[in-house]
Amino acid sequence: MVRRNFIFDTIKSVFRKYGYQQIETPAMENLSTLMGKYGDEGDKLMLKIRSNKSLHDFLLEKHPDEYSKNVIEEFFKLYGYEWLPRASERALRYDLTVPFARYVVMHQNEITLPFKRFQVQAVWRGDRPQRGRYVEFYQCDADVVGSPSLLNEAEFIMIYDEALSKLGLKDFNIKINNRKILSGIADVIGKSDNIIDLTVAIDKLDKIGLDGVIKELLEKGFTIEDIEKLKPVILLEGPNDIKLQSLRDALKDSTIGLKGCDELQTVFNYIANCPLQNATLELDITLARGLNYYTGAIFEVKTNEVAMGSIGGGGRYDDLTSMFGLPNLTGVGISFGADRIYDVMDELNLFPSDTNQTTKVLICCFDAEGETYALPLLHSLRQNDINAELYPAGAKMKKQLDYANNKNIPYTIVIGSDEMESGLLTFKDMASGLQERLGVKEIVERLTL
Amino acid sequence: MVRRNFIFDTIKSVFRKYGYQQIETPAMENLSTLMGKYGDEGDKLMLKIRSNKSLHDFLLEKHPDEYSKNVIEEFFKLYGYEWLPRASERALRYDLTVPFARYVVMHQNEITLPFKRFQVQAVWRGDRPQRGRYVEFYQCDADVVGSPSLLNEAEFIMIYDEALSKLGLKDFNIKINNRKILSGIADVIGKSDNIIDLTVAIDKLDKIGLDGVIKELLEKGFTIEDIEKLKPVILLEGPNDIKLQSLRDALKDSTIGLKGCDELQTVFNYIANCPLQNATLELDITLARGLNYYTGAIFEVKTNEVAMGSIGGGGRYDDLTSMFGLPNLTGVGISFGADRIYDVMDELNLFPSDTNQTTKVLICCFDAEGETYALPLLHSLRQNDINAELYPAGAKMKKQLDYANNKNIPYTIVIGSDEMESGLLTFKDMASGLQERLGVKEIVERLTL
Repeated sequence: MVRRNFIFDTIKSVFRKYGYQQIETPAMENLSTLMGKYGDEGDKLMLKIRSNKSLHDFLLEKHPDEYSKNVIEEFFKLYGYEWLPRASERALRYDLTVPFARYVVMHQNEITLPFKRFQVQAVWRGDRPQRGRYVEFYQCDADVVGSPSLLNEAEFIMIYDEALSKLGLKDFNIKINNRKILSGIADVIGKSDNIIDLTVAIDKLDKIGLDGVIKELLEKGFTIEDIEKLKPVILLEGPNDIKLQSLRDALKDSTIGLKGCDELQTVFNYIANCPLQNATLELDITLARGLNYYTGAIFEVKTNEVAMGSIGGGGRYDDLTSMFGLPNLTGVGISFGADRIYDVMDELNLFPSDTNQTTKVLICCFDAEGETYALPLLHSLRQNDINAELYPAGAKMKKQLDYANNKNIPYTIVIGSDEMESGLLTFKDMASGLQERLGVKEIVERLTL
Repeated sequence: MVRRNFIFDTIKSVFRKYGYQQIETPAMENLSTLMGKYGDEGDKLMLKIRSNKSLHDFLLEKHPDEYSKNVIEEFFKLYGYEWLPRASERALRYDLTVPFARYVVMHQNEITLPFKRFQVQAVWRGDRPQRGRYVEFYQCDADVVGSPSLLNEAEFIMIYDEALSKLGLKDFNIKINNRKILSGIADVIGKSDNIIDLTVAIDKLDKIGLDGVIKELLEKGFTIEDIEKLKPVILLEGPNDIKLQSLRDALKDSTIGLKGCDELQTVFNYIANCPLQNATLELDITLARGLNYYTGAIFEVKTNEVAMGSIGGGGRYDDLTSMFGLPNLTGVGISFGADRIYDVMDELNLFPSDTNQTTKVLICCFDAEGETYALPLLHSLRQNDINAELYPAGAKMKKQLDYANNKNIPYTIVIGSDEMESGLLTFKDMASGLQERLGVKEIVERLTL
């Protein structure tokens, strides 16, 4: 919890800094809101809430004719499942995007556009639990709706840079592409209808190499001539501005392709004015992600310090809310892969050992007299905003020190008869084992540092 | 969200200061963990998750004989409900206490006793939504298990005092009673078996007065003689130590009653060493709450500033985990009534207007040139940890200022051609309407204050 909170609190603080407002939606949505939005697999894995109405009552209501009534009654008499539920009307949220779209449509008259919201909540999927796959897990999303400005794209790049840098990541790439460039590439070889095959093949460049990509393209019906035209685009190299110039040359006959280049250029110009801390912004035309969904920018974040899949992604979409009857509302959003970020930070040892979430000092005493002596000290530590505990009198000293060790409490104060007489308490650094005799004022000072 | 977070963050920080660790449990528990723990009403209102297995498959598995197979197939052919679910095996958590008990039993070999945990999570009840009753709402609990020391009771009083004072409450009573005193009172009139009738009647003193209480006691079979003995106890007055002395006199023949007095005295002694900020600690023997549940201390918190039910409560219980096969584990806990605290703070206007959760300044510009000019300023504000936004170029100034007003952004910076030429930007306090022309450095300084 302490570590997960550290990640979420850091990301949230950056979202807020950039003007995003937190919303939360209820865990349950109407079944009709969610069904059909995530494909067959999603419909199946969605966790549905049982209604309290029995199947028996439901069937009788639906089939009031005499014949059906007899069949139904006979059936239930035989099998006795009067307690069986009918179909549910609600389900647990499956992601944060669809509930957000529902929220925007429902509150369209109250929200001010552009609407910048972030959301960090659990989602549920009824999969069999396995390594890295949980029935309940957290998503962490930010989106702007109602603003076509590319400033938003630039700000998301800055948010990734600032949040991941704050978490201690030193070297990571924010990859950017644009759906319009992918359309342009398909355009210039006259294969707009095969854009999916094309991007799926190009996307594998890293894994299967150029030869593999060419083989796959030939299999999918692309000609040698098509592939010759594609080669310079696929093998794009160098800094972003060189890549962009090569793209402009290759896409000079595609209006949409050039539009994509212009959009990327605008985003790069914004970023030039606000230097990134640790991120490298990389134009990567092999990046496709949920292609059918995105209409403009496409993002993905990868760390270079640990072998790990993408730790974030997103893009611009133009039809988030049309499924709920509100068309033409443009949006752009990103999400952080919190579980993978956790694993990266764990491997790189980036979690701070000293957080303000845990107890800093445990006061130990031998008896009720020591306990009474300890109370004003405890009170004074807490008045100085130091997280402190007093172990209730009566336990053996070993048990008290074990408690401190088990809870990773870094300091202990021991109060025995010597200590009460002299006013000098035994202050112990649990990591080094170093003990000192200090007065109350010195101890408070030491812990306030 | 901003206001709710303010309440929860404040309470959480106090829990941590006192050495409590946050835990979260999954939203879903096994149905068998939850059923039967909250009475018939609870079993009914509990939200159960539908299993993905169809009723069709479930019935066929259960009734493999040829005759049943035909009946079942015929039935489903006729009514077509192949998609119907069988009974669920999981349900959404109904409160935080039962999942916590399950957690303690499950992790009994890993946790260090005393185990001090807090938990702030949603719970679900399938009630028809109505004013003040929601299907999904938050509970906010802290408990210690495995520590019989009354220091814990004293610390909970301090936690209430510190958290509610931090939230801005100036005058509230923390009422304390002890189950053993209530037992003692029933004891001295020889009516131990009627303790429930007795406490239910006494509990109404505020509402129906002494005459009403006497009437109810007579109806429940208490004698005039009983009532004469009870009167001095019911009408207890004065400061806590006077009340306690009167109780000791009245309960002098009850071992358990005197034990209750001793326990209260111990708690009062602890508190005497750690003065409370704004709370009044009040011995109130009419306080019973979930009587069957509590075995020692009973708490309840009421504000004196607003007419409102209790904003917190709790007590000591000795059998939290016995329902899961781990008997004799003592516990004591409290909970904060976050929804009511919200209403109290709202009525008393206690929510801070300036939280660090919202945007502090909006930069407005007329065109793309202004936008480019604004970027380094935006960057510099954020580097100084000021929550800042830049409205994307292209919108009318009125729309931009409306955006600031709708989002309660307290300051705006306007960048027009004059401003870019002179380097003096128009800085506006949105509340007072006051405008000044300031340089970038001055603006950053002004906002950092």
